[in-house]
Amino acid sequence: MGAVPTHMSSETVQITTNERLEVVDITDQITNAIPTNTTGTITVFVEHTTAAVTVNEGESRLLGDFETALDDLVPDGGWAHDQIDDNADSHVRAMLVGPSVTVPVADGSLQLGTWQSVLLVECDGPRTRQVQIVA
Amino acid sequence: MGAVPTHMSSETVQITTNERLEVVDITDQITNAIPTNTTGTITVFVEHTTAAVTVNEGESRLLGDFETALDDLVPDGGWAHDQIDDNADSHVRAMLVGPSVTVPVADGSLQLGTWQSVLLVECDGPRTRQVQIVA
Amino acid sequence: MGAVPTHMSSETVQITTNERLEVVDITDQITNAIPTNTTGTITVFVEHTTAAVTVNEGESRLLGDFETALDDLVPDGGWAHDQIDDNADSHVRAMLVGPSVTVPVADGSLQLGTWQSVLLVECDGPRTRQVQIVA
Repeated sequence: MGAVPTHMSSETVQITTNERLEVVDITDQITNAIPTNTTGTITVFVEHTTAAVTVNEGESRLLGDFETALDDLVPDGGWAHDQIDDNADSHVRAMLVGPSVTVPVADGSLQLGTWQSVLLVECDGPRTRQVQIVA
Repeated sequence: MGAVPTHMSSETVQITTNERLEVVDITDQITNAIPTNTTGTITVFVEHTTAAVTVNEGESRLLGDFETALDDLVPDGGWAHDQIDDNADSHVRAMLVGPSVTVPVADGSLQLGTWQSVLLVECDGPRTRQVQIVA
Repeated sequence: MGAVPTHMSSETVQITTNERLEVVDITDQITNAIPTNTTGTITVFVEHTTAAVTVNEGESRLLGDFETALDDLVPDGGWAHDQIDDNADSHVRAMLVGPSVTVPVADGSLQLGTWQSVLLVECDGPRTRQVQIVA
């Protein structure tokens, strides 16, 4: 047990979505929030239980395919939580994708592969979402 | 290539589960294991292949819905691994959720959204599980 | 906002796969790439959009079961992205597993549970894949 590194940075960006189920490329917003001297990894963490974050290709038809896949894998209704708040499908979809990704960074630049983008997976929009970027 | 930060902390907490497939809110146990001076991120990592960790809402009916969803997505039987150890369904369910989450922390406090909890996803209980918290 | 730790290490390993959908145990390659003085966590990140990384048991029949599960969960065809590049199924499968895992490390040694291995999930092989290990 010892002290952890104290020179951390944390930024929050807001992302506004337009559909109930919508996959959005947020690479530019993440890139702009990373301090230029950052080397190592950043964690992109969405502060919500009906949205998720992943990394994949930002091609528009593929983003729609992700939406279709999540809609097909998880039924819209028939959940116990719907008795309280009618969005259990949104929670289950978000859980399958996960709330965060950790991505390599060098000198403030995301070390993504050629086709990789950081994607916000909105599962209960439209909303404005808070995304933390912690270096 | 250089030395990595040396002032890391690592704690292990034990979580006992009661059902074969059970989603358990472990936010309090994680919070208690984080050193008060931690700022940056912590990684919550389960040291098992038939359990997983995620972040979502700890509402009891929703926890049951997660169990239902994993049970519906992955058939109980018909797997090759069942010839060795009759729990392939548990491994596949755990793989879909994943073994770890990385969560922002400030001054020893998890920086979770209003509705977020850290959830242990037991897929082959009841057991006692070891969960590492690395800052 | 402050400077992030500067003493990071980053290594890349190449993994060659042999099948279109194939789960490969890469624990040894990852272990060999970790500097001996590393303590804390490492992030294993695949620089591709049709491959993924997870942690589970490296038993051969179970690896085949993971391939079967991903094949069953995500249909091979019927996707919009297939009009551009006939591999939307590969992207969707990779997205469900995720591009990275963060694993505890002590003195250069992965702190995995008894049955845990680091697994590369190839979803559009055979190919040679670049995997970053960032400490």
